[in-house]
Amino acid sequence: MPVQLSAPKAESLLPVKGVQLGYAEAHVRKPNRKDVLVITLAKDSAVAGVFTQNRFCAAPVTVCKSHLSQAHGIRALLVNTGCANAGTGEDGLLRAQQSCEALSQQLNIQANQVLPFSTGVILEPLPVDKVIEGLPKAIENLQEDNWLNAAEAIMTTDIVAKGTSRQLQLDGKTVTITGISKGSGMIHPNMATMLGYIATDAAVSQSALENIIQYAVNRSFNCITVDGDTSTNDSLILMATHLAENAMITEQSPHFIALRDALTDVAIELAQAIVRDGEGATKFMTVKVEGGKDEAECRKVAYAIAHSPLIKTAFFASDPNLGRILAAIGYAGIDDLDVNNIELYLGDVLVAEKGGRAASYLEEQGAAIMKASDILVRVVLNRGNADVTIWTCDFSYDYVKINADYRS
Amino acid sequence: MPVQLSAPKAESLLPVKGVQLGYAEAHVRKPNRKDVLVITLAKDSAVAGVFTQNRFCAAPVTVCKSHLSQAHGIRALLVNTGCANAGTGEDGLLRAQQSCEALSQQLNIQANQVLPFSTGVILEPLPVDKVIEGLPKAIENLQEDNWLNAAEAIMTTDIVAKGTSRQLQLDGKTVTITGISKGSGMIHPNMATMLGYIATDAAVSQSALENIIQYAVNRSFNCITVDGDTSTNDSLILMATHLAENAMITEQSPHFIALRDALTDVAIELAQAIVRDGEGATKFMTVKVEGGKDEAECRKVAYAIAHSPLIKTAFFASDPNLGRILAAIGYAGIDDLDVNNIELYLGDVLVAEKGGRAASYLEEQGAAIMKASDILVRVVLNRGNADVTIWTCDFSYDYVKINADYRS
Repeated sequence: MPVQLSAPKAESLLPVKGVQLGYAEAHVRKPNRKDVLVITLAKDSAVAGVFTQNRFCAAPVTVCKSHLSQAHGIRALLVNTGCANAGTGEDGLLRAQQSCEALSQQLNIQANQVLPFSTGVILEPLPVDKVIEGLPKAIENLQEDNWLNAAEAIMTTDIVAKGTSRQLQLDGKTVTITGISKGSGMIHPNMATMLGYIATDAAVSQSALENIIQYAVNRSFNCITVDGDTSTNDSLILMATHLAENAMITEQSPHFIALRDALTDVAIELAQAIVRDGEGATKFMTVKVEGGKDEAECRKVAYAIAHSPLIKTAFFASDPNLGRILAAIGYAGIDDLDVNNIELYLGDVLVAEKGGRAASYLEEQGAAIMKASDILVRVVLNRGNADVTIWTCDFSYDYVKINADYRS
Repeated sequence: MPVQLSAPKAESLLPVKGVQLGYAEAHVRKPNRKDVLVITLAKDSAVAGVFTQNRFCAAPVTVCKSHLSQAHGIRALLVNTGCANAGTGEDGLLRAQQSCEALSQQLNIQANQVLPFSTGVILEPLPVDKVIEGLPKAIENLQEDNWLNAAEAIMTTDIVAKGTSRQLQLDGKTVTITGISKGSGMIHPNMATMLGYIATDAAVSQSALENIIQYAVNRSFNCITVDGDTSTNDSLILMATHLAENAMITEQSPHFIALRDALTDVAIELAQAIVRDGEGATKFMTVKVEGGKDEAECRKVAYAIAHSPLIKTAFFASDPNLGRILAAIGYAGIDDLDVNNIELYLGDVLVAEKGGRAASYLEEQGAAIMKASDILVRVVLNRGNADVTIWTCDFSYDYVKINADYRS
């Protein structure tokens, strides 16, 4: 079950002026589930995206990047679950383009004003006919207050829908931000992928939006890991409809930081929700590495800890097995690391220093902290001023079960 | 249960002239198990070692490196299980040195002619008194034909003892090689560590032996992974007693290659045995990556596949879930990889090419291959002539069970 996470209430996901959402049950892979989502955007909206670094990136990712670079004004997003359209070569690109073409005709826009997204089984052809058959239904129920339905329509192995909203005042105008995400591992069995969609009605320049999405993703979706696998389809999209009547925000605007931080806050909550709903997760772990020479080395240490199956199974067992954490710090790849200078904390308890167990540490303290569902692991390297925080979950029987049984 | 692996028969582990082995039940952590091993070497033996790269390396590793560098002629090895003497700071070094001192007095050699090894719980002080109390018993039963007892004495979570022998003719003389190893993960819960000891009676120069151990370890112990965790205590020792009466072998000798390859063969068998006895293993996977620009990039791809929990759980389920393998190739970190040029084989069946599933591939073929206990995954990158082969195992419920339940 998800760790301290429940689905948002429909009324808690606030409409964003100029953003409409509609869904359909198109039977892409299974009947009786929402599996096609259409999002439409007001004219002149700004849109920015970041995508997977995986070299085997899926066909829709390639098409998204192309359409975004053509800068013709994105007017619609089309998402399907059930099939990732990844590992599908030239034919996959054609099918992704066909889906854009079909939606553009029905909305009376151009095909390159549509961004396509797919999540689901890899290596199988996208049943594009089924997606297209679902479009009229999705267009028919396009509404501004459809965010919870939209969050449900993009779920695959997720147990709960993920979404959140914020409002802030800029120039005396109320600006709304609403976002949804899906993904319960960085990559799933076949039902791959992390997807995130965040919209605001703020007026914000294209350049400022691109600045913000990089800032936000580096502090949110790039700071989570469930199993260390990077999906072929990961995508995050940030949309701004410019209908809140605030003065256009650029990087130089007084409100730039406020908007950036609010959007980042939404991105962090959506990213953490993915980890809390991680496959088989029973614990949510925050790994903070401080005092590094630079962020890169902090990140190495944090991910060595977060990816270690030995550490993740120890957290599942609520076992304060500190040797495993020290070993991971040791093999993280910092060649000149002096292990005698490191401090390791579990919650606020110092557990190791000077190359070994702290004299003050009692096993009962560690055991008490490990019983919680949210646990902080803090490493102080004492060699600089950089720090990094990432989030992950434990590794349980259910992780193996979910991933071993998925296709059978 | 181990995958296609059973303990060697005592008589199959051939004595090596000049190498005696003795063990004791010293109750280092648990009663009624062999947990101290002494190996003695004839005078003027050559000894070479390779050790963990982990920055949190254990006290005995530090002492081994120091004693080897002093080049006073190593005469004895002392191994204990039950406690790794790792993460123990200055006090750990003292205790490791105390154990060398005690053994050296009883054997009438110098303390720096002893190499110490420990494997077991991390972060706890070595009960050096117990180890020392066990020494007289171990010395009393020193024998040349004690290799199976020795293999058993170094086991921790291993299910079966691991050892093998080879003989070859050099200069009309019979040369014997016998080796033992332990470790059923690259690192264990607390009972950490991969250890390997290989001895030969061949006459071989120190320089040639150091050349051989690097060659052998790069093709054996450096090519295996169970969970991606690198122990604080990993050690491999190669010993040559010079009593086989062959002409001294140097890098220029005609027999150098024959001896090197025989020793490498033993190292490969011992390394593979560790994977076959991997924690919870039900499948033995050979991952071969060919056609890379260099070995480094082949290694990246091979380890991305071998470390992926998604791939390892799919193998546990006998599910030919090829998308997971393509995704791992894609995120392995080769920036200019053209995925359209890659071929992926399962056994001898081409399963993917041109960025997607091979037209000739049938799911039944993949399913049939996945049922075997030994499976070959072969990736052809088609961008150069380098290749790398590594070995790993699958990821099962029992892996989680072993590592979650270990200390409780």
